[in-house]
Amino acid sequence: MLEEIRQQPKALEKTLRQELGSANELRARLARKRPKLIVLVARGTSDNAAQFGRYLLEITTGIPTSLAAPSIFTLYHASVDFKDTLLVAISQSGESTDTNLVLKQARAAGALTVGITNEASSEMAKLCEHLFLVRAGREKSVAATKTYTGQLLMIYLLAYALGAPIDIDDLRRLPDWTSQALKLEREIAARAERFRFMDHAVVVGRGLNYSNAFEFALKLMETCYVVAERFSSADLLHGPIAMVEPELPVFLFAPSGVTWASQQSLMQRLWQVKAEVTVITDQSNPQAIKELNGHKLAQCICLPARLAHKGRTPAELYTPIPYIVPAQILAASLAEIKGLDPDRPRSLKKVTLTL
Amino acid sequence: MLEEIRQQPKALEKTLRQELGSANELRARLARKRPKLIVLVARGTSDNAAQFGRYLLEITTGIPTSLAAPSIFTLYHASVDFKDTLLVAISQSGESTDTNLVLKQARAAGALTVGITNEASSEMAKLCEHLFLVRAGREKSVAATKTYTGQLLMIYLLAYALGAPIDIDDLRRLPDWTSQALKLEREIAARAERFRFMDHAVVVGRGLNYSNAFEFALKLMETCYVVAERFSSADLLHGPIAMVEPELPVFLFAPSGVTWASQQSLMQRLWQVKAEVTVITDQSNPQAIKELNGHKLAQCICLPARLAHKGRTPAELYTPIPYIVPAQILAASLAEIKGLDPDRPRSLKKVTLTL
Repeated sequence: MLEEIRQQPKALEKTLRQELGSANELRARLARKRPKLIVLVARGTSDNAAQFGRYLLEITTGIPTSLAAPSIFTLYHASVDFKDTLLVAISQSGESTDTNLVLKQARAAGALTVGITNEASSEMAKLCEHLFLVRAGREKSVAATKTYTGQLLMIYLLAYALGAPIDIDDLRRLPDWTSQALKLEREIAARAERFRFMDHAVVVGRGLNYSNAFEFALKLMETCYVVAERFSSADLLHGPIAMVEPELPVFLFAPSGVTWASQQSLMQRLWQVKAEVTVITDQSNPQAIKELNGHKLAQCICLPARLAHKGRTPAELYTPIPYIVPAQILAASLAEIKGLDPDRPRSLKKVTLTL
Repeated sequence: MLEEIRQQPKALEKTLRQELGSANELRARLARKRPKLIVLVARGTSDNAAQFGRYLLEITTGIPTSLAAPSIFTLYHASVDFKDTLLVAISQSGESTDTNLVLKQARAAGALTVGITNEASSEMAKLCEHLFLVRAGREKSVAATKTYTGQLLMIYLLAYALGAPIDIDDLRRLPDWTSQALKLEREIAARAERFRFMDHAVVVGRGLNYSNAFEFALKLMETCYVVAERFSSADLLHGPIAMVEPELPVFLFAPSGVTWASQQSLMQRLWQVKAEVTVITDQSNPQAIKELNGHKLAQCICLPARLAHKGRTPAELYTPIPYIVPAQILAASLAEIKGLDPDRPRSLKKVTLTL
């Protein structure tokens, strides 16, 4: 797992280089006919990438975007109107049966279908009209890492293909930013020791980093066997905050930018109830960070600040890929400390088939 | 809380009787112009009702249905295309700021807006074009119960207004079925003792009962301070199953009908890893139930079977309201056993305002 986490900058660089042509081709096609609805379908880690897509695509294109509920098709056999719809299916292996069933049904009902997968010869690759290939190389660990960031990158390219203000030069900087995040490996591995006996935890994100809360929680569940809840900061305040006991470990994705104020106000609430808060953030809030470090219950994992941006789009837009890296390292390190093998979690296979 | 749980049959009966006219009025309007997309927006318990709506409306109308992500509007200030959209806002108090902001913005952008609330004089009631009033009387407990089932009932009426094959006579049987579920109160209160020291748990639903998994987990978090995860059975198998330790308490909504096979196959997996499984089910699977009871790690909460149905729609369609009742009773009883006050959970107020 750790090996594959380290491969991410190269995988991202390769995927961007080799798939840009495919994105431009799709861009030309979508310029002729713009979809009125985007539906994403996936399971597991790919579904967390879809959650990111649900935010990024709606924010940057204004096209209503939805996550499919596969059981509506596989169990209820509903006939859903897919006219003028862009259906995006995501699967590492391309063999997820329920994802492929929705893809097939949507295509038959007139949707334009895009597949995002690692496998050029998979069932998904055959079923979809437009294929995006994640060039991450074979992922051996059952716990997906480089696949997830590769899928996020493809979703940026999809937004670009839909005419969103995504700057390819900004995407080109992501591998380097990810490399910088990887430099935290030793620091995070040392910090993981603190969580040796953690049996449950809460992970919180907001907006574009909401998907990272799902993904970090999934890594903690899969590789460390921690019962890890995931929330948006708003949802946590609407009820679940009551369960937060003193010293409950809470992990918070808090980049500077549009979601910062809401994350900061949540931190205040969490400190009031004496939760054990770990904040993944960047250095562009020096005063705020100082306040965090000043508080004895708060710990910071500080990502390197991103270069100042041209101003057209907020830098927060590009945080999800580098921000998941420290979380991946923490999960892999904690699994090792606990004597578990994150590449082969109990009860799991690499490809899961569900009804 | 327990008092309000018991009021549900009467509240449902009253709401149905007084709101049927409103549903017929909306039905006439929607017959002239059918929406192409349905978007639901809510927070907390109301968001769990919205989750139910996301399934029911798409299954029974075939119109693509989505849950709004409020931060896209409140934090990212995105401009989303709401043409031909039906926007459904749900809030007990009608004063949820982010829900109302999305409602307002959608209406300005051309959506037809429906509000579902308890409060006729709330901000939501003023903002929406068509109002559905949940006639549950004032809800004093911070932990919502009769509001939730009232909202589910309104969503059935909304599906009916959209021309879905919802039989009003079937809805008229729901108060009685809910009364029958309430007869389990003493049995469930006794069973709650078993969970006195439970500090985390997993709740699983599927399809139309997926929202009940969210709602039961929320009740356990709010009133019993239990770290309660919620999953669909398919999502649990895609990774989180690895964290299931022997004796981890898992609660499973498993009505007979279209989701039964998937829930049954999950039970097998959970027993293999020796989880402590409690199944909420009905009596229409006598052989299956016998097998469940034969397994030492499985416990059943058996709801009364529903009268045989005319066959046009599956009976499973009407399970979510009676099925949440035993879960509400279990949460209220467990809170009492733990010496907690479910009407006034720590850190919470009845109306939560978020960015």
